[in-house]
Amino acid sequence: MTDHGRRGREARRAAPAARKVNYRQLRNPFTPQEIFSADEVAGVHEVALRVLQELGISVLLPEACEILRRAGARVEDDMVRIGRDMVAEALRTAPARMVLRAPNPDFDQDYSAGSVLFTAAGGCPNVSDRINGRRPGDLASYRDAVRLVQGFDAIHKQTVAPEPQDVPIHLRHLAMMEAQLTLGDKPLVVYARGQGQVEQSFELIRTGLSLSDADFAGGIWASTVINSNSPRRLDRPMARGIIDFARAGQMTVITPFCLAGAMAPVTVTGALALQHAEALAGIVLAQMVRPGAPVSYGGFSSNVDMKSGAPAFGTPEHLKMQLGAGQLARHVGLPWRSAAGSAANAADAQGAHENVMGLWGAMLGGATLIIHSAGWLEGGLTFGFEKFITDMEAVQTLAELCAGDSYDPDAFAAIASVEPGGHFFAAPHTMARFEQAFYAPLVADLSNFGSWAAAGAQSAEERATAIWQDRLEHYTPPARGAEIAGRLAAPIAALSAAGGAAPLQD
Amino acid sequence: MTDHGRRGREARRAAPAARKVNYRQLRNPFTPQEIFSADEVAGVHEVALRVLQELGISVLLPEACEILRRAGARVEDDMVRIGRDMVAEALRTAPARMVLRAPNPDFDQDYSAGSVLFTAAGGCPNVSDRINGRRPGDLASYRDAVRLVQGFDAIHKQTVAPEPQDVPIHLRHLAMMEAQLTLGDKPLVVYARGQGQVEQSFELIRTGLSLSDADFAGGIWASTVINSNSPRRLDRPMARGIIDFARAGQMTVITPFCLAGAMAPVTVTGALALQHAEALAGIVLAQMVRPGAPVSYGGFSSNVDMKSGAPAFGTPEHLKMQLGAGQLARHVGLPWRSAAGSAANAADAQGAHENVMGLWGAMLGGATLIIHSAGWLEGGLTFGFEKFITDMEAVQTLAELCAGDSYDPDAFAAIASVEPGGHFFAAPHTMARFEQAFYAPLVADLSNFGSWAAAGAQSAEERATAIWQDRLEHYTPPARGAEIAGRLAAPIAALSAAGGAAPLQD
Repeated sequence: MTDHGRRGREARRAAPAARKVNYRQLRNPFTPQEIFSADEVAGVHEVALRVLQELGISVLLPEACEILRRAGARVEDDMVRIGRDMVAEALRTAPARMVLRAPNPDFDQDYSAGSVLFTAAGGCPNVSDRINGRRPGDLASYRDAVRLVQGFDAIHKQTVAPEPQDVPIHLRHLAMMEAQLTLGDKPLVVYARGQGQVEQSFELIRTGLSLSDADFAGGIWASTVINSNSPRRLDRPMARGIIDFARAGQMTVITPFCLAGAMAPVTVTGALALQHAEALAGIVLAQMVRPGAPVSYGGFSSNVDMKSGAPAFGTPEHLKMQLGAGQLARHVGLPWRSAAGSAANAADAQGAHENVMGLWGAMLGGATLIIHSAGWLEGGLTFGFEKFITDMEAVQTLAELCAGDSYDPDAFAAIASVEPGGHFFAAPHTMARFEQAFYAPLVADLSNFGSWAAAGAQSAEERATAIWQDRLEHYTPPARGAEIAGRLAAPIAALSAAGGAAPLQD
Repeated sequence: MTDHGRRGREARRAAPAARKVNYRQLRNPFTPQEIFSADEVAGVHEVALRVLQELGISVLLPEACEILRRAGARVEDDMVRIGRDMVAEALRTAPARMVLRAPNPDFDQDYSAGSVLFTAAGGCPNVSDRINGRRPGDLASYRDAVRLVQGFDAIHKQTVAPEPQDVPIHLRHLAMMEAQLTLGDKPLVVYARGQGQVEQSFELIRTGLSLSDADFAGGIWASTVINSNSPRRLDRPMARGIIDFARAGQMTVITPFCLAGAMAPVTVTGALALQHAEALAGIVLAQMVRPGAPVSYGGFSSNVDMKSGAPAFGTPEHLKMQLGAGQLARHVGLPWRSAAGSAANAADAQGAHENVMGLWGAMLGGATLIIHSAGWLEGGLTFGFEKFITDMEAVQTLAELCAGDSYDPDAFAAIASVEPGGHFFAAPHTMARFEQAFYAPLVADLSNFGSWAAAGAQSAEERATAIWQDRLEHYTPPARGAEIAGRLAAPIAALSAAGGAAPLQD
């Protein structure tokens, strides 16, 4: 890797000084867009209320059924029917604005409508790069993903992929928390795989960050994504996660994954109605556990491909559901989480197309949290290192748009300084601003065809290899990383020796 | 090509029947987005008025100078200073709504704010595909491009690229008009390369479509793009084109190409001020020639890459200028033309990223005409056949969004028909809609990694080859193509024998 590193350093030296655009806290500059009328949105909401009240949702964790029963739900076996009064009460207590705390306060995030947080690909069992090929995720690649994410300010939370499959499942949460806490300093993510793992993860956060129990309970130091099992089912780990996070004052992002034509109705509003019902059910559970518990509305619905039956992303239907989900989230007054991502098997034109489309759907849907923004290949089966880099070009482009632009009071003088047919290259107005004027592309190659061909005619995917290698070689650990690692060593050793914690089975 | 064709036919047979989404006439479903405040937009407009009034614009065609002088401009040599009263008068007479007539009335296009017209890559001297390589454009490739465009309803006007360089320049317009009129039936495009070529092109349109002089003069049967020579210069062919098209009642799309940091100020509002001044100058000339002459405001500004000095596309600055140009167009009350496109050398992730970004910038800027939407490689130096296909996925995705979605009144019943943990694959609600429910991807491959790898791990760019080949093999000529060809044969032979028409020199 030395050769790549040297070339990277030289390129960096030749490049202009970094621009001072703040990517760390973003506000969405775009008006949320609507695809359905207000009546239609109210209609979808009404269908969801009827689904919850008349059909019910299957909740596989008895403790969750009992909490909902006590709050007024009608429970028969695992089938829980939730009245619209309970939904109204939950929407009254669910917060519309939260703050995600980060180990580094510079990465604290406002979580409300209008803010934008991007995260890297999540949930990927595999990892892929052009040096090591496609393989099961392991701890080394997970730690590298955390390092990569740490180097991009436009990624606003920790990554949970690729899955470190070489770490036994009962110890994996310890290794993932150790990586997040020592290799990065962005808001932390904990998988809800049972009470034991969640509590141990929370314990490591408190110890690593020297938080008292009160400090921890008083802020949102961890979040988790809760996926319902569409249609109409909340399994044991997910229900457990909602309860444990709500009790600890930590954040759940309630996200049905409704594939129209497979696990959801084949129509856009049909799939949205199911998604909405399931999201509301999760929000109700959280609020019945603890009124005011931090929750996010979530939607990640798309369609299946008609030919293969596989999940598709970046499709017109995906975007319609993003816009519709945004309307539903605003209808109930909550910030929401969307997702981009790609079904492509490579970081090629399809992969870029799908992800950029999904990113725009999320932006225009007014999503606060945009998951799978970079690196998601094969519909989430693989975290691609090159894909992460090519996608970051899009994420950074959107971050630049969030920063807006400033009016130039010297425009007339600048135009007056150049004669017709002349050029502005050497104008003082240009010279004073040129180095900082424009976004510097991450992976785009602007050289002409001849130069590009002579240099090997590399695709963006091929060029991305040297970029992630360079990023890893020049990775800067967070200021408190070593200190936190020191604090974590003993408790992780003790928890490991005691067998860690087994995941809760579905 | 037979093998590819056979495979293409089989794939088509297996695919579901085509969905009935109208791509032919599109309305923009998105609210135009703003990046500058109303005061800032007024400020840029004011700078442009001062540029025209105090600095002036160089107009190299004496007849144009004389027209502007008679209308009140102050003219010294080729420098023309245009007062704000003249601009106001031009903006009063320039139409806000036009209709582009097509040889096939099904392709007539409303040209006003809110409509969306996509066109393929324009202005490309070269052509490239994976079978024949990169080479100078020729008539065969131009005719194939016209055939490809004809097969996609989401492309709304004829293409003028790749440039048929093997046809002598004095005859080239004849060959291009013949191709447009006989191989397609969408609104026609004529290059403004001097009065002789323009008049002969108009003559072929009248003859080919059997239009009387009054028919032709009474509708917009041809349009042309007018590029000013930034900064502040209108050359002879462009000024000539404005005059000739305005007199004939045909449409000019006045489009400065302002590269911030090169031919325009390095700031976004600085470049927009220059673009706005030059666009207004062209609109004034057209309106002084003939009040009410069909014109479109145009903007195609971006930045140069800081490293290479090359034009960049799909960048944050490009998108900011698209949003700002839209605001300026609305400020003066005219529909406007934007452009997408790519600086990439291949139909890879960079190429897709850049073009999709630019398409969104144009959509959100409220552009009526979006040029270079598909096939534009190397910043316009090359028309890529594979790039055309991969870009059409994005164009069609946006066309689907323009068509909106319909509310499903059966959503509750559909959800009720499937038990928790079940699936909707076989539900009657799904079966009745599945074949028509979703957009069928053009080039996206949704197969899993194993199948994709076993089939050769083709990138989207590689897959696109078989698609354009199949499209050409199954090309359907327009209904009146042969009839029109018959009418054109004699006049083209006569015009050719008489030497065609030489282009007007700059």
